[in-house]
Amino acid sequence: MGQKGDLSVFKCGMVVGGRQAYVKLFESESSTYTYLLADTNTKEAVIIDPVLETVDRDLKLIKELGLNLTVAVNTHCHADHITSTGLMKQRVAGLKSAISKFSGATADIHLTEGDNIPFGRHSLTVKETPGHTDGCITLVTGDQTMAFTGDALLIRGCGRTDFQQGCAEKLYHSVHEKIFTLPDECLIYPAHDYLGQTVSTVGEERKFNPRLTKSMEEFVELMNNLNLPKPKKIDISVPANLVCGLHHV
Amino acid sequence: MGQKGDLSVFKCGMVVGGRQAYVKLFESESSTYTYLLADTNTKEAVIIDPVLETVDRDLKLIKELGLNLTVAVNTHCHADHITSTGLMKQRVAGLKSAISKFSGATADIHLTEGDNIPFGRHSLTVKETPGHTDGCITLVTGDQTMAFTGDALLIRGCGRTDFQQGCAEKLYHSVHEKIFTLPDECLIYPAHDYLGQTVSTVGEERKFNPRLTKSMEEFVELMNNLNLPKPKKIDISVPANLVCGLHHV
Repeated sequence: MGQKGDLSVFKCGMVVGGRQAYVKLFESESSTYTYLLADTNTKEAVIIDPVLETVDRDLKLIKELGLNLTVAVNTHCHADHITSTGLMKQRVAGLKSAISKFSGATADIHLTEGDNIPFGRHSLTVKETPGHTDGCITLVTGDQTMAFTGDALLIRGCGRTDFQQGCAEKLYHSVHEKIFTLPDECLIYPAHDYLGQTVSTVGEERKFNPRLTKSMEEFVELMNNLNLPKPKKIDISVPANLVCGLHHV
Repeated sequence: MGQKGDLSVFKCGMVVGGRQAYVKLFESESSTYTYLLADTNTKEAVIIDPVLETVDRDLKLIKELGLNLTVAVNTHCHADHITSTGLMKQRVAGLKSAISKFSGATADIHLTEGDNIPFGRHSLTVKETPGHTDGCITLVTGDQTMAFTGDALLIRGCGRTDFQQGCAEKLYHSVHEKIFTLPDECLIYPAHDYLGQTVSTVGEERKFNPRLTKSMEEFVELMNNLNLPKPKKIDISVPANLVCGLHHV
């Protein structure tokens, strides 16, 4: 952990507001990005989209960095992997799980539009961005420099809309009204990437996203005709994720 | 691309010195990280450890961001993948390849200790960090906030020392004298990670690296008894990388 006045950088150190640190981690089987954000003064931390397979790696790092993990939040009820929030709750005293009220999933905290997830002097604000699922949220830092978009907006792509209450029209509105209205320089941190890309910006996606730069009609037509195979783990992951990943664990 | 005064963030936006942007990209077959650094005013850019398989992705991004790529540098003559520097030179007018003088490889620029690779108002300084190979270098930004360590220092690990002039004792000295002497908060960006970790800091590695926290004698003993299998692609990659990846291409 680095120190620079009261500004610390834990790992992939995009520092926001001077006292917030950010860590990016990757789970390769489902190509999921997990994010760890912390107030480097108070050590309070929040984890976004942690994955069952990497729970030991993540908890080891949290321990090494001396963080007090207070909230584990999922951007939605994932279909492609099982969340580790339930298992983390068993291992980290006081940890609370959080997910959108509209996900239908069990959690300690049910989030809706405008809610804040505080960690020390920082917080994440909830924006409801349904379309991939009804319970998708985007989490935006207080200074609007970072947005964790889950599967709503991916780098040069977006989440599919053909299962779990998916609706292309809803997704189009969510991205255009809730994400593309953020500042151009706001960094986009998605839940997945399959091409080795790690981050984008609102400005880049507004300009170069091949799907979301289309008209709504063209977007809906495209999304309704992707003909993607069913996610391999959906029948295991969704029931598990409805109970913080603890189904049959 | 985001704009914030003259400070722009292209992607995984670790901004250094106010006018430098940084992009991290991943090649999954060889678990290689490629880094793109740019002066966001002049648009001059440098790429570190680009991989043959991802040349199209990388050049597309460079074009989208409007960058003028001037140097493609390899931290060493890789054994696990083929570099795209030669192919990039064919596609990008004026691009020069660079590698350590002690790599034995062909390149436009042969680097030695203290050399600078400029890009706009920024530059990378060469530190010779042999041990994984004789021609390994670490590239450090002018303000010492970022170090691109190649295979010398990995996150909680280090490169092997059992082929290509590898020498555990040399590597131990390189890391302790050239990398661990950087500021604690200096971010470590390695050429590879196999566990989904994306970045570390000098302070973290000095404290938690399970290999480099040992005594030199213990480190040498450990490194000389890893009994790792030979890299799958070594017989193809090394001859190719000795000529900027253009062998048999």
